[in-house]
Parts: sequence; structure tokens; C-alpha cells
Amino acid sequence: MDLTTRRNIKLVIAYNGARYHGWQRQAPPFDTIQQRVEQAAVRVVRHPVAVFGAGRTDAGVHAEGQVANFHTTNLAVPLIGLRRAMNSRLPPDIVIRSAAEAPEDFHAAGSAVGKTYRYRLCVAPTRPVERAGLVYHYWRPLEIEPMQRAARRVLGRHDFRGLASSADDRQSTVRTIFRCDVAAVDDEIHVTVQGDGFLYNMVRNLVGTLIEIGRGRWQPGQVDLILESRDRAHAGPTAPPDGLCLVCVHY
Amino acid sequence: MDLTTRRNIKLVIAYNGARYHGWQRQAPPFDTIQQRVEQAAVRVVRHPVAVFGAGRTDAGVHAEGQVANFHTTNLAVPLIGLRRAMNSRLPPDIVIRSAAEAPEDFHAAGSAVGKTYRYRLCVAPTRPVERAGLVYHYWRPLEIEPMQRAARRVLGRHDFRGLASSADDRQSTVRTIFRCDVAAVDDEIHVTVQGDGFLYNMVRNLVGTLIEIGRGRWQPGQVDLILESRDRAHAGPTAPPDGLCLVCVHY
Repeated sequence: MDLTTRRNIKLVIAYNGARYHGWQRQAPPFDTIQQRVEQAAVRVVRHPVAVFGAGRTDAGVHAEGQVANFHTTNLAVPLIGLRRAMNSRLPPDIVIRSAAEAPEDFHAAGSAVGKTYRYRLCVAPTRPVERAGLVYHYWRPLEIEPMQRAARRVLGRHDFRGLASSADDRQSTVRTIFRCDVAAVDDEIHVTVQGDGFLYNMVRNLVGTLIEIGRGRWQPGQVDLILESRDRAHAGPTAPPDGLCLVCVHY
Repeated sequence: MDLTTRRNIKLVIAYNGARYHGWQRQAPPFDTIQQRVEQAAVRVVRHPVAVFGAGRTDAGVHAEGQVANFHTTNLAVPLIGLRRAMNSRLPPDIVIRSAAEAPEDFHAAGSAVGKTYRYRLCVAPTRPVERAGLVYHYWRPLEIEPMQRAARRVLGRHDFRGLASSADDRQSTVRTIFRCDVAAVDDEIHVTVQGDGFLYNMVRNLVGTLIEIGRGRWQPGQVDLILESRDRAHAGPTAPPDGLCLVCVHY
């Protein structure tokens, strides 16, 4: 194939995932982000398209900076027109933030060296209906300082098996966490985690554990026990998808 | 009937109306706020209940302070318990903000002397996916000053027939507007309107008109023409429901 007749398009995508069954293409009637983006791309480039995403966000999970790429043989559509045309074919809760030409060998998932996720907890006595689906409403008070001390203990290179909801024995469960912040923002607590990769439900299990620590059931040292034992039973429950957002993908 | 065996409960309700077919009870499969609140009430007071709302918000319209009332013969449930028990039976996008005893003759709609609505326009080049359903995204620039001058012209007692999507000739279309503000709030424009009553789609038609003025198609004086002519054809298009919120009901 003559590579000069083919473009590799890198998309940065934001979405409110509340009403979708996640990123990953599924059989009807399940509506997913990937399908919506593919449909929009097909209508613009006018040939079948497979859009590959960097992160397979689960049902109800959001993104500010999901990255995806697809190949097109359509050389006529300029990038600015591509973005606008795709956006006019996408629903109000999905938007293409940017479209750029990428090298032929760029792959949104395979080329990524890390990701940043943010989890929003709303700690308030009254249900925040306007933010329904975007935050996890936790109505009991949480102490932030023990959560912050616990968060620091996940920094660095560890076997995170104890924070994975499922793990394949043939694959490594060792990951490196570069950043794990717990910050108060108005009536919310934001947990921001950057790592070179994440196991299944790892952020949500981490947040579920931090909540147990924040409400005083466990000490921050529980994190060490989870990492040393590699035992999911020592971690907190999986926090719901609502509060989770893929903030950006690092290359 | 012995009135001492019956309580009149006044509820203040907030909801994100994005996924509902409005307030008003409808035949299945249409999901409405009124049905959800009635179902929650029935499960708490354990007898059939009719909940009456002050405003019949349309599909996709939100509320911060909808007011409703219902009668119950259940004298055992305290108010605080009623609110909590109802909230635990309501979905995350509906919340009972307060429950109070009201006089026997209090009626959420009939006793109201006015309402305040707010309309949120997001004026930004990029679609605000996180606020999908909560704001009307208008990507072209709007000049706020002419909109503010136009808004002042609706203040007072007028025949608002020209801003109603439908009107019954047998009923008065005269209403009094006490407040009509247009304010810039970050990347949004908020139109806040308080009146003694509103005709069908009146706020959305007013906002549609203000948008035409803000983008320079019409002068602020267009409002006078609409009020004098009583002709809907002189007003702008009906703004979508997304941005509209019933802020409070006045008694």
C-alpha cells in the first residue's frame, strides 16, 4: 500500500459518559462512544473506519482527553473541516476537541506512555442533582488528611494486584504511579492519579479504599497492606463509575 | 372528614430533568418527575398519593426549587424521616430538598404568587460536554449589552401573547414580570426571569428572542414590537429546554 495515500488522524475526545455503555464498541442496542465516533467519522470521510481509543472507559465513565486514532484514504478533507464536520454529527455529550495528523505508526493505545484520571467525590448532605452522573455523592463526612497520607503511599513502582478487580496471571500487575493527589475543591474531593498504566478498576478500587480511610474505618497504612498482600480483599469497595474521568493520555 | 387525621405536606424538589419527559404524569413508557416523586411518597406513607406540582416543567427542563404538595393520613412518619426515606427511594437526579407541614388549604400551584426561572446559555466555541443537557450551547458570539437593554423592556405588566407558543383565547395572556436579568457568568450567559406567571414556552421564546438581539439580527426595540403586536411571528425561535431551570416558586 502506498502510504502517501493514507492519513493517520489523531483525535482528542471529551465526553459525558453517563448515558453510554462505555467506550468499547458493543452489539446493539448498547450505545457506546466508540460507535458514535466511528459513525461520525464514516459520514465525513465516506469509507469504513475503525477508531482505536487509548483507554476503554467503562459504562458511565467520562473523558476530558480520551485519545483515539483512525486511518483514512480521504485526502480531500482538511483537519479543521474534519473536526467541525464530525462534531456536527455527534450528540451534545461527545465532542472532538482536536484532530491532527499523526505519524503512520502512531497508535492511540500502543503509543501511550501513561494516563491521568480524576475521580470526583461530592461530600455534601444533599444530593447534587445537577452533577448527577458526574460525581459520586458521599453524604457522610470524610477526613481529607488521612486520605492524602494514604495517597502518597501508592506513589512509585508497585504490584497493584490488590487494587485490580480482575487480573490475568500471565500478565504483569506491576505499574508505576507518578502522581496521586487528594484535593478539596468546594464541596468536592478530587483524587487525581497519573500512572504508566492502570489495571482493571484500579482507580475506582483505590478511591473506594481512600473513602474507607477518610471515614475512619482504616488507617492510611492499609494501603501498604494491600500492596504487600496483593489481596483485593484488603481493599475497599469499587467506587461507582460516575465520578471517574480520563483527563489525558500521555505520549 | 376529620382534618386532624390528615396532613398536607409541602415538598421542595430539585432535579436534573435531562432524562425525563417533564414533570407531568404520563402513560408508560414515559418517565416523569411527578411519577417518581409519587412512587417514593407511596412507599413511605403506604397509601395512594397524588402529588401536585407548582410548575409543569417540560421534558428536559430542570428545577432547583420546584414545589409540590400531597395529603397523607399517615401521622406516624416525622418530616425528617419522610424526606430521608423519600430520598433513599429516588434516583440520583431527583432530590427532596425539604419537607414541611403546610396548612390544609395550601396548594403548590394555586397558592403560588410567582415563579423564578433561569436560563443558561453557554457561549463558547467548544461544546461543553460536561454540561450537556444543562445549558444551551450557542457557539456564535453574543453581545450581552443589547440583550440587557432588551430584557429591561419586558419588565412590568404586559400582554405576553407574542411570546407564547400557544394561547387559549378565553384566558388572559397578561402577566407581570418583576425581574429580567441578563448576566455573564464565566463562559455562560444567565437569563433570570421572575414573574407572577408564565405562558406556555414564554421564557424559552424570550430567550430565543434575546439571542437574536445578542447576535445582532434585531435591535432591543424588537421586544416592544412583540409586545404591541401580540404576534409570535415577531419573536425569536423557542430556545431548547436544556438551559431552563425552575429556580423557585413564590408564595
